[in-house]
Amino acid sequence: MLKTHYCGQVKKTSKKVVIGGWVHFHRALGGIVFVKLRDSTGIVQVTAPKNKVPKKVFKTMTSLTPESVILVEGKVRASKKAEKGFEIIPKKVELLSRADTPLPIPVSEKTDIRKGTIFKKRETSIRIPHVNTYFKIKAEVARSARQYFQEKGWTEIFTPYVVATATEGGAEMFPVLYFEDEAYLAQSAQFYKQAGITAHEKVFGIIPSWRAEKSRTTKHLTEFHQIEVEQAFATQEDVMKLVEELVVKVMRDVKKNCKQELKTLDRQIKVPKTPFKRITFKQAKEKIKKLGVKEKSLEDFSSPGELALSEQHDDPFFITSFPTSIRGIYYGDKKKGVSASFDLVAPEGFGEICTGGTRVNDHDELVTRLEKKGLDPKDFEWYLNLFKYGMPPHAGCGIGLERLTKWITGAEDIRHVVMFPRTPDILTP
Amino acid sequence: MLKTHYCGQVKKTSKKVVIGGWVHFHRALGGIVFVKLRDSTGIVQVTAPKNKVPKKVFKTMTSLTPESVILVEGKVRASKKAEKGFEIIPKKVELLSRADTPLPIPVSEKTDIRKGTIFKKRETSIRIPHVNTYFKIKAEVARSARQYFQEKGWTEIFTPYVVATATEGGAEMFPVLYFEDEAYLAQSAQFYKQAGITAHEKVFGIIPSWRAEKSRTTKHLTEFHQIEVEQAFATQEDVMKLVEELVVKVMRDVKKNCKQELKTLDRQIKVPKTPFKRITFKQAKEKIKKLGVKEKSLEDFSSPGELALSEQHDDPFFITSFPTSIRGIYYGDKKKGVSASFDLVAPEGFGEICTGGTRVNDHDELVTRLEKKGLDPKDFEWYLNLFKYGMPPHAGCGIGLERLTKWITGAEDIRHVVMFPRTPDILTP
Repeated sequence: MLKTHYCGQVKKTSKKVVIGGWVHFHRALGGIVFVKLRDSTGIVQVTAPKNKVPKKVFKTMTSLTPESVILVEGKVRASKKAEKGFEIIPKKVELLSRADTPLPIPVSEKTDIRKGTIFKKRETSIRIPHVNTYFKIKAEVARSARQYFQEKGWTEIFTPYVVATATEGGAEMFPVLYFEDEAYLAQSAQFYKQAGITAHEKVFGIIPSWRAEKSRTTKHLTEFHQIEVEQAFATQEDVMKLVEELVVKVMRDVKKNCKQELKTLDRQIKVPKTPFKRITFKQAKEKIKKLGVKEKSLEDFSSPGELALSEQHDDPFFITSFPTSIRGIYYGDKKKGVSASFDLVAPEGFGEICTGGTRVNDHDELVTRLEKKGLDPKDFEWYLNLFKYGMPPHAGCGIGLERLTKWITGAEDIRHVVMFPRTPDILTP
Repeated sequence: MLKTHYCGQVKKTSKKVVIGGWVHFHRALGGIVFVKLRDSTGIVQVTAPKNKVPKKVFKTMTSLTPESVILVEGKVRASKKAEKGFEIIPKKVELLSRADTPLPIPVSEKTDIRKGTIFKKRETSIRIPHVNTYFKIKAEVARSARQYFQEKGWTEIFTPYVVATATEGGAEMFPVLYFEDEAYLAQSAQFYKQAGITAHEKVFGIIPSWRAEKSRTTKHLTEFHQIEVEQAFATQEDVMKLVEELVVKVMRDVKKNCKQELKTLDRQIKVPKTPFKRITFKQAKEKIKKLGVKEKSLEDFSSPGELALSEQHDDPFFITSFPTSIRGIYYGDKKKGVSASFDLVAPEGFGEICTGGTRVNDHDELVTRLEKKGLDPKDFEWYLNLFKYGMPPHAGCGIGLERLTKWITGAEDIRHVVMFPRTPDILTP
């Protein structure tokens, strides 16, 4: 038997169908068996009254266990009791894979799943429709974002993931044994996307990054993706405009193409208006103070501070004019001590989802900055060569794919938007 | 000054333009300076006759070094001597970044670059138009492949890259220190894409993989991407048809959308006809023997054997019916000892670019296979759970993105299609 329909395609008028999927729900009474059959597109009711189906079919239907995989050939019949107004009366049933009982976790949607289990028994929880709906939306976010750049003639780049030196310095890297050498997993594609503009001027990619931070929060992962953006002959302002356009396009596309998924998550999307509001670092600090969160004025925002500020907004907003001292060494200055860079903060407590700005474009300035950080410019020779041999002014940003998706889907925890998340506590599955 | 035109956009009729880019070629004679200005879209000639341009402009133009970055405002003027039939007479020139001399390697296209240098001084060589043309085509291959799946309703998945256990067993993995645990870089997304079908049925992704093989050949990288494909309720046959369609679509798109790039590489694309030819493993072995290459009959093809076979063909072809013993443990059997799997081999000596087939779908069979390989089923508990709790029959494949691009572009070495390749000898840049 071959599937003729996905569950989501079956209609009252479909007549004869072959569908296949997982036994989402199973109840065998004396004279009748009810099965809700689930595939990736939806759920359909299969009803086997003892006196209306072949003996063999009734026997198979009776013996099913939850999550077993079956193929069903049958007729569609109107039914007032069935959720969709119809049910399928099976003529043939093929058991393709019998599921053991009990299941490690219940898969039926109505069961409450405690957070911990959902991530630890991940190989089973990803079957749950409201669990995998987050991944569907993430796929649309990725598709839409790539399309934004491709339609404008940008070039997608692939950067190396195993690297010899740190981008940001610091100890937050995962060491890799690369044959006899010590290497690291890339913290970001920063240096390599800057190199990319010497080939293509305008480059993007959805690129994996790793941070060995022991942050156990609802917005940190050790393995994640960034929508990486770098543009020659551009400034902070150009990139901020791009980010506005990109966010609006992605949200419009999700709203249009993920109607069913948004319904499943009970999430309404409000596409923000451009231009997004802008506040300075100093203004943000003052607001946070007024909200009663204490933090130091020249340090980056604390998690509670950022959260409080984000919760005050219904739309995404930019923070600009950060002190140079707390930004990556590759950001240029707007004026002495003030970085030509920005953060994009999502509202409703979702927090920072993008960082970007104008890059330093001067070889000697970069050497000074590396040395100030206690780094040896010799380790960055290839990067410095970019600036030694003709580099256009440029700007760029990185948008967290998972953070953006978390905000769009309204997920409480960033792990919800990752099929198999990696955190300090999760390495399997 | 802001760019009004990319070099590739300037026409004889453009009148006033501002262009920006790199000094690809520079010659200052007594009374006239010639510059070929290069950006990501092409090259345009800028000519500064001493008596026709402002003094300051002539001075700047005279002093330029190769690869310096400039902005030029000027007028387009017809010229019989210029390659494109016109040149730009500069009114204003702004030097944005002065390149040191001499360059680490010559960037002008006409210079012969020895292979080694091209990969070692990679931060400079990627500026060379015929070098970065490979990356442009690779981006189109990736775009086209994703579009193939998206238009058919497949779901893009993101799988973990740092994993606790080996997919294929064996020692060819890069160890990662994951906090206090030993982990590895994923050899493939195999197990995770199989998990993905329990959520979405039909999944794909362009996903990084790593192999710690000390293979110094023209087709091996330690870090590469696979177009990963997995489909529920499907068999080897379905996947082979999909691969045929996908390869044809990608080649058509490259032919259509990369005309300029193919010209730069002097590569003609011949879109193959479907269905692709099929030969069995046994037939392939016999052919290789006839071609005078010695290899053992029950082992996988040797590199010289595969090369010889591939060179006999003008179109891609499938090899089927491999012995089970030399295939991944996750491939099902067609009959005892014969794997339900295939390789797709590109012609003209380009060799294997895709491996796929029907998967084992039985929990106990997988346990037996793991044990036969000397692996502990306990280490694969999460993977085995997929099969314990209801798994549909399924099939899939992995297509090497870099290998496919190598064939399409006609690259002699796989490193040509990677901006910053990783091999046993290259970890920087």
